[in-house]
Formats: sequence, structure tokens, C-alpha cells
Amino acid sequence: MQIYRAPIQEMKFLLEAFGYDQVSALPAYSDFDLDTTVAMLEQAGTFASEVLLPINRVGDKQGLRWDAATGDVTTPPGFKEAYARMVENGFVGICGDREFGGGGGPITLATFLNEFWISGNKSFSMCLGLSQGLIDALEMHANEEQKRAYLGKLVTGEWAGTMCLTEPQAGTDLGLVRTKAEPDGDRHRLTGNKIWITFGEHDFTENIVHFVLARLPDAPPGIKGISTFVVPKITSDGKRNNIKCAGLEHKMGIHASPTCVMDLDGAEGWLVGEPHRGMRAMFTMMNGARLLVGVEGIALGEISYQTALAFAKERRQSRALDPDKRDRNEPADNILVHPDVRRMLLNIKASNEAMRGLACWVSINIDLSRHHPDEQVRQEADDLVALLTPIVKSYCTERGFFNISEAMQLCGGAGYTADMCIEQYLRDERIAMIYEGTNHVQALDLVGRKLPRDGGRAFQVFCKRLGAFIAEHAKHPELGPLAKELDKSLGRLMALTGEFGAKAMADPEMAGAAASNYLNLFALTALGYCWCVQAAYALAQGGARAQTKLKTARYFFDMLMPEAEALERMIRAGKEPIMSFAVDEL
Amino acid sequence: MQIYRAPIQEMKFLLEAFGYDQVSALPAYSDFDLDTTVAMLEQAGTFASEVLLPINRVGDKQGLRWDAATGDVTTPPGFKEAYARMVENGFVGICGDREFGGGGGPITLATFLNEFWISGNKSFSMCLGLSQGLIDALEMHANEEQKRAYLGKLVTGEWAGTMCLTEPQAGTDLGLVRTKAEPDGDRHRLTGNKIWITFGEHDFTENIVHFVLARLPDAPPGIKGISTFVVPKITSDGKRNNIKCAGLEHKMGIHASPTCVMDLDGAEGWLVGEPHRGMRAMFTMMNGARLLVGVEGIALGEISYQTALAFAKERRQSRALDPDKRDRNEPADNILVHPDVRRMLLNIKASNEAMRGLACWVSINIDLSRHHPDEQVRQEADDLVALLTPIVKSYCTERGFFNISEAMQLCGGAGYTADMCIEQYLRDERIAMIYEGTNHVQALDLVGRKLPRDGGRAFQVFCKRLGAFIAEHAKHPELGPLAKELDKSLGRLMALTGEFGAKAMADPEMAGAAASNYLNLFALTALGYCWCVQAAYALAQGGARAQTKLKTARYFFDMLMPEAEALERMIRAGKEPIMSFAVDEL
Repeated sequence: MQIYRAPIQEMKFLLEAFGYDQVSALPAYSDFDLDTTVAMLEQAGTFASEVLLPINRVGDKQGLRWDAATGDVTTPPGFKEAYARMVENGFVGICGDREFGGGGGPITLATFLNEFWISGNKSFSMCLGLSQGLIDALEMHANEEQKRAYLGKLVTGEWAGTMCLTEPQAGTDLGLVRTKAEPDGDRHRLTGNKIWITFGEHDFTENIVHFVLARLPDAPPGIKGISTFVVPKITSDGKRNNIKCAGLEHKMGIHASPTCVMDLDGAEGWLVGEPHRGMRAMFTMMNGARLLVGVEGIALGEISYQTALAFAKERRQSRALDPDKRDRNEPADNILVHPDVRRMLLNIKASNEAMRGLACWVSINIDLSRHHPDEQVRQEADDLVALLTPIVKSYCTERGFFNISEAMQLCGGAGYTADMCIEQYLRDERIAMIYEGTNHVQALDLVGRKLPRDGGRAFQVFCKRLGAFIAEHAKHPELGPLAKELDKSLGRLMALTGEFGAKAMADPEMAGAAASNYLNLFALTALGYCWCVQAAYALAQGGARAQTKLKTARYFFDMLMPEAEALERMIRAGKEPIMSFAVDEL
Repeated sequence: MQIYRAPIQEMKFLLEAFGYDQVSALPAYSDFDLDTTVAMLEQAGTFASEVLLPINRVGDKQGLRWDAATGDVTTPPGFKEAYARMVENGFVGICGDREFGGGGGPITLATFLNEFWISGNKSFSMCLGLSQGLIDALEMHANEEQKRAYLGKLVTGEWAGTMCLTEPQAGTDLGLVRTKAEPDGDRHRLTGNKIWITFGEHDFTENIVHFVLARLPDAPPGIKGISTFVVPKITSDGKRNNIKCAGLEHKMGIHASPTCVMDLDGAEGWLVGEPHRGMRAMFTMMNGARLLVGVEGIALGEISYQTALAFAKERRQSRALDPDKRDRNEPADNILVHPDVRRMLLNIKASNEAMRGLACWVSINIDLSRHHPDEQVRQEADDLVALLTPIVKSYCTERGFFNISEAMQLCGGAGYTADMCIEQYLRDERIAMIYEGTNHVQALDLVGRKLPRDGGRAFQVFCKRLGAFIAEHAKHPELGPLAKELDKSLGRLMALTGEFGAKAMADPEMAGAAASNYLNLFALTALGYCWCVQAAYALAQGGARAQTKLKTARYFFDMLMPEAEALERMIRAGKEPIMSFAVDEL
């Protein structure tokens, strides 16, 4: 049972509520007014459910074939054809740079398109995500010649891209990378062994462009000695480069996404950017990728919700606890009469609609940060994006995994079998908490970089936005109570941030001990704001949606926000409970 | 990488701390003093790691073969042989009734043995669990002739047993069962279709005895019209009965445990117990099975913890936040210097050691309830078992799943691959939240049956035990602070139980809305008590363990107990946030 209805109306609502009109008012996005954007989303949603979803299950079951002799990887039946159709329909390049053949669309559109590709087929979608990462890095750091050589074919999807970062000894800690790059005329020769390379080899495209972290001969040790190189599978003279897939990982999920071991044996590569400054390019690529990974949790949570809701609407089991709700003509009642069935659905709905709101808000701010004429607007938008990106990546992936598990629970034994697809979504989603920087790496990024940066300016922008909402709506009969809850939550976050920030300078271990819980606390406040924005806009708009949004917002504050109190206590417990154990006591 | 060291010393400690001396003092268990029991555990632990664990991975990968023509099921390589060795070594019957060839051991021993079988190979262990369920049901409800016919071979493991409950339309709601039983001389002819039948067909034993829920021709509708029948695969005259495996489910995990569709086509069956009173037999079987399922969460949490800890001890990545902890001879530090790595390990350790304590406490009380000479002791023990069994089943399975996921997170990308086994444990464990009564069914059992029964007597016994501990240790310099935390937790639970109990009578929907959160709140208090008991015993005993246990107990109260505050708020939110949505708003 594969079920998916693209949540177009919900997205349209969010675009309005979070101020997409500011984006479409920018000259850069004059072709992307709300109606055009929604029309594109509709086409993409149809494509996801009609082309990508039907091959999702076969991808999981059949997985990939790797030829040990050639290193070639064959994707599951239908994948290559689906990719070709996607390029043909122009979906790959919609938001790419116009200069290189893209449609020039905003990131906000890209975020929602990505949700569709992931819901339809997460394994498949990962190829697009990696290419996008490479495009972002090249646009920012490559020289003109390199851009001309690669971007045209990458933007349209004719070629695909990868990120070759990890090595066996260097995962979270990329400073440990050992791959060597020896100068050879105008190029370099790269030799080393990379692992976890997503779509490192496949049959979608005639060429694959690798972005490789390596060390020059004179590189200082550690993170300050990393350089980046572009290494095409086929070089411009048509020769097969010495980079080869030496094997595939066997994983819990994403069976149709090739996770490759890549061997480089004197592969030809070209330096991108300055020597030893490669980590700058990595950070460029990572922000976009982290937002995308957060969307994975939202997308698979959505499709799991829809699957569980459809199951619940059909299933009859046991009697309603309230005798008035019993159906006398049937031996059992529809399970939607049972409070716990509703509680499970609402846990997903109330978290996922807020997370999608957050992803929308962040995406709109990316667009504003790039193109708004007013420098202060750009600055504030950029601050919000920097601050909230690790939260989107970490919270949405963890909650997404939990939401899929909740959907499975609702479906009982059936949810555990391959007849429903929830079990695949659960397996496919789990990796999102690990890759693109583990969730704890996100928490350290938030606490160690994003909060203290520029004297805490980004956090001030965040507080100002929430404060303005609270002030504006405090007296409103229906929004007032929500604003009051948000105020309480923000107050707690501000107090903790103040105390915690002062201590963290003196004691980084304390910061490390609290960081993951702090990120979750921050996320709950941000999601609370996203609910307030939605409730306010829905009320202003009126109609049937208004009361539903208001009730779901209340559910969030009643049933999900309480977690913040537990998190506050854990943070206040400090590092002592964690650090007082000797290794042999563990 | 499969790693497992049976936690024998920990179990010995728990046996002492929770009063196993009371069990071994009973004449029925005079052969099972502490040393003998621990020696048996050691043998079993060795068997689990040397025989069961080595075939765990192949079981997952190769799974089962079903022959559509004959209905036969072939288990993975090595499984049949391992089962034969287990029977040969006498492990299956250790705790079975002596009258039928068992060793007469206590349930407490069985619980810890079960932990080993599950850690070694969960799929494999399920065959033993189902047989035990059947044995319990027959011992309690079968007539003498039936006992003689079946129990001898079942107790030793020569034959295996199943529970045939579920049908497509009847899962949680067994009142919807439709399988018919028509009288035919001294027997009945059963016709119907059963699903989710664990080890419904396999090649471990020459005969399989099915315990089948069905309806007699004069059965009233619903749960009061269910009778139970014993239906052997091979009848006493050597004929193949008309019960056949019509297919296997394809599941997320437990790939080596056959989950069968069973067709009965006029199969010969014999009524067990009184007509229409079959649900009594089910409840007998369920208590034992629910404790066992709770242990699944503990067992797979334990082996995942050990795997993650071994990984952590080897892995170097990034620099210690505290400069004094940096290893100047290495380019990166061991990851156990990082607070978050420790936090993840301690989350598992602090929950799992408490859950094992709880399972031990409940098991000891089962033994006391069956054999203690003093009626009041038996009564109180039975009350505690009834009250705590749904908590063990629900909390330990949910937390177990979370703990395995936490262990995976610690191992990063490696944890997501099949090279480590954590990903299999995560898949194998997920079903435990669903089968043997979903976790919400446990919560309804706690709230709707166990709490109100006998005027709330069981809850009073629970409060009395905790109260006694608090009073005894309140002034102790090291235990006093823990006792105070426990007192706070118990106070909250008592207050909520009072308020909630009064309202629940008038409004069952409110009870249904709060039940799952209430169960978790109750579990945290019970686990807090289990930590206090362990800390007190460890301190009294002295030695290296004392400080470790005390620190882990403190970690529990600092870092896991805070969840109770969030749960309290959610419970107090009542049913309104959940029930106010119309179906089309979901």
C-alpha cells in the first residue's frame, strides 16, 4: 500500500503565512509569483506520485548491482528512466542559475520540490541533493573556467555530482583526511580512499563530477590543510579518470541509493578555490544540504501520516469508550473513536506542520538574504538562516524518525510488514540523524558557532521576531493564549541561553554536555512560533482551516511543548552527571 | 561485528539486591540457591554467545523458505541444529514443571535465561517464548488427559507450541474472532484463517501444538463467545491434521522467525477449559508473555550498548573540549572524552539497568506469589506482578527501541550498516511495541483493570513498598538525596492517580487519552525505586560497584526522571486537545 497526496494546499498556505510575497516581489524572482509557484508544485507533486513513488518499493527490494570488475553500479528497474524524465521535464534545473541554463527559481520553491522528491522516493532523491551540493560549492568557489566546464551540465541534470569527504579514519573529524593531491602540470593527481560516497557511481548520467577533499604536499596538519578538487569521472578529453567505485555499503535502508567506497589512484583533479582553504567550500555546501536533510524527516513523516490516516479511516476494532459514539450496526467501531489513535496522529500532525513551517520560514530567509535590496534585511535573514539551519537538520530528522515510528504503531502488525511502506520509510529515514553532520554536530554548531557569532546578533534577531508577535497578539481573544505560551517558552530559552552562554565560555565540556538538549529546547520554541504564525494567518484568512489550525496549535502547546520543561532540567543538571564516570565504569 | 558478553555479574547483583534469597528459601526452589542459579546462567550465557549469536546474522540475511505446495517452512542454516542442542543441553525445560520432566526452576531464572536467548538471537528465541505461553495455558486450564498428552513433550522442547489468536479482522479486538469449531464426537472440527502466527510452522520439532481461539456453534457474539482448543499438527494417531501454513509475512525484522498465515480446514481440535470462557486462558498466557516481551527491549538494548561501547573505546575522532584531556601523541582523541558520547551511553545504561532490575523484581514476585507459605505475601506479590507487568511490557519495549537507536547514533554511519549488527537489533526490536497487546493496550490494562481492581489494593502495595524505602533511607548521607527524589516522584504519581482515577470513572475517554502517558510516568517512578534499591544494596555491599551504581542512579534522576514533568503536564491537558478534532480535520 503506497499512498501519497502532495500537500499542495498546505504549502500554499505556508507560503502566504510566512511571507512569500516578499520573495516574489524581488526582481530576481519576478517570474515566481505565488500562483506560478503553486502551479509548479502541483506538476512536481503529480510527478512524484506518478513516476517516483511507483518505483520506490522495487528500489528497496532489489537494491543495486555493483560490478566488481568494472566498478559500475546499476540502479533498480525504472530509476534511470525516471531520472531521464525528470531532466526532460526540466524539474532538476528549476531553481538553478539562469546563466548556466537553470530556471532561476527561489530556494523556497526548491525546498518544497525536494519534499516531493523525497516523499516519492528518498533513495532516488539523494542524487539530486548531492548534485545541488556540488553546484552550490562550484558557484561560490570555482573559477570562471571551471564554472563554464561543469555548471551547465550539472544545473540541468545532464551530469550528476558527488561530495567525497569521509575516509575510514575521518568522519565527523574531517581534519583527519589523508587523501593526497600531487601537482602535475595544470592539474593534480589524487590518491586515496573515500567511503560513504552517496551516488559515487550510478547509471543515471554519462558523467559524474566528484568534489574531493584532499591534502596538498605542503599542507599543514588538521583542518587547515584541506583543499578541494573537482574530479570528473570522464575528463574533458573523453578519458575515463582513475576514480572507481570499489564496493557498496549494505545498509538498513536507502537500498537504492548507492553508498560507495571510492578509490582514487592518481585521479586527475583540479584545485577549486585557494590551497588549504577547502573547508570554506564545505561549509557553503553544508548549509543547503542540512536544510535538505531536515526536509527528509518532514517528507517521510508526511507520507507515513497519510498512510496511517488512510488505514485508520478503514479499520474497525473494539468499542468506543464513549457509548454515544458506538456504531450499533457494526461489531466494532472505527478506530478513530479511540483517543490514543488520535493522539498518535496528532503528535505527527502537530509536529510535522510546524516543522514544514520552519523549513519554509528558513527558505524564505535564504532567498531574502541573497536578493533583498536592503542590507539590513539581508543581514537579518542571513542571521536567521545560520541560526536555524542546524535546528532544522537535527530536530526534523529526529522527530521525523519518531513520527514514522508513531505511524507504524498506529497500524499495528500491518505497519511492521512490507505490505505497508512505513517500515521502509522508518529504515530510510534513520540515516538522516547521522549524515551531513550528526545531530550532535548540529548542536555544537548552534552552541559553539551560531550563538556566540557577532556578539549573539542572530539570537537577538530571533528574539525580536518572536517578541514582536507576542506584543502584537497578546490581547487577541484566540491568539492571546498562544502568544502567552510562546512568551513563556521564549522567556525560558532566553534565560537558559544567558546563563548557559556565560558558563560555556569557561567550561566547554559543560556546553558539550548540554548542547543536544539545548538544541531541542530551542527547536520547540521555534516551532511554537511557527504555530503562532500559522494560527494568526489562518484566523485572518478565515474559512474552514482557521479552527483546525488553531486547534492543532493548541495541541502543540499542550502535548508537545511540555517536553521543554524536561529539557530545561536536564540542561541545568550540568556536566557532572555525565563526566564523573571513569571509562571502566561504563 | 557481533559482540556479546552475558551480564552475569550484574544479574547476580540484582538477584541479591531484589531479594532472591526469599525465592531460594522456598521449598519448591530448594535446588536453586544463588550460586547454582548463577552457575546455570553462566552456562546459558556461554551457549547464547557461542551457539545462538553466530547464526543471528545469517538468519536475518537468508530468512525463511516456505514451500507453497506443502506449507513447510525451512529455517535458516544452523537454526534447527542449535534448537536440537538446546533441547539436548536441557536448557528448554529448566524452569518447567517437574511432573512433566522439567527442572522445576523459578521464573526469576527463566527471565534471565530469556534475556540471553534473545540477546543471542531474537528470532530463534521466539519459538521458546510461544511454547512457554502454551505450556502456561495448558497447565492452568487443560484437563489431566490433555496435560499428559502434551506437556511432557512441550516442557522438554521435543515439541513446540503456538498461540493462534489473530485474524485479519480481529487484532487488538479478539471478540471479532470468526474461526468456527463444530462438534464431531469427542473432538471438534475447526475452520478459519489465522494470521501473525509466530512459529506457526517450522522444522525444529516433529510436532507443533497449536492453541486456537474459535467459536462454538452456540457461542454468544463478542469476547464472551470465545473458546480455546488444542490443535496438534500431528494427531495422536500419527495423522497430519488439516492446519497448514498458507504463507509468511514479509517483515521489517525478525526475518528468521516465521510469522505465518495459518489455514484451518476442518482441523481436529480438543476443547481446553469451559466453553465460551477461552479469554481466561488467554490472560493466563499473556502475563508471562508480556514480561518476556519487555525483556526483549532489555536484551537488545544490552547487546547494542556493548557493541556501541566497544566501538567507542576504539574510535578516535576530534579533540577533547577540555585541553587537559587531549592526547598529544595522536591526531585525535578517543571519543569517550566527548560529553555527548557519554550522554548517549549513560542514557542506555541508566535506563537498561533499572529495567532489568524491574524485570527481576517482578519475576521474584511471581515466584513468591506461587509458592510462599504466607498468604499475605503471596497476595501482595501477585498484586505487584499484576500492576507492573503492563509497565514492563510497554516501557521496556519503547525505551529498548530508543536505546538501540541511541547506540546506533553513537556509532555514526557504521551503525547504519550491516557490518555492525545494531541495525538488525533495531529492526528486530520494533515489533515488540506492537505484539502481545500493543503498548496502548498495556496502558488501558493498567488504568482500566489493574489500578481499580480490589479497591486499588495493588497500587497501595506499590506505594507502601516505596514509602518504606523512603522512610528507611531519608537521613542517609548518600541515599537520602535519592530517597527524596523518589519521594517527589511517588508523590506526583499518587496525586495524579487520585485525581485521575476519580475522573476516569465518569469519563472513560479522558482515561483513554491519558493512559499511555500515565503508564510512562508510572514506569519512571518504578524505575526510580529500582535504582534506589540497587544503590542501597551496592553501598551496603561496598567495593568498586558501589560508587558506579550510585552515580548511575543519580544520572537517572538527573537526566531521565525529568521526563515525568512533561508527562504530568500532558496528562493534565485532558482529552480536549485530542478529541476536539472532526475526522476530516485530521
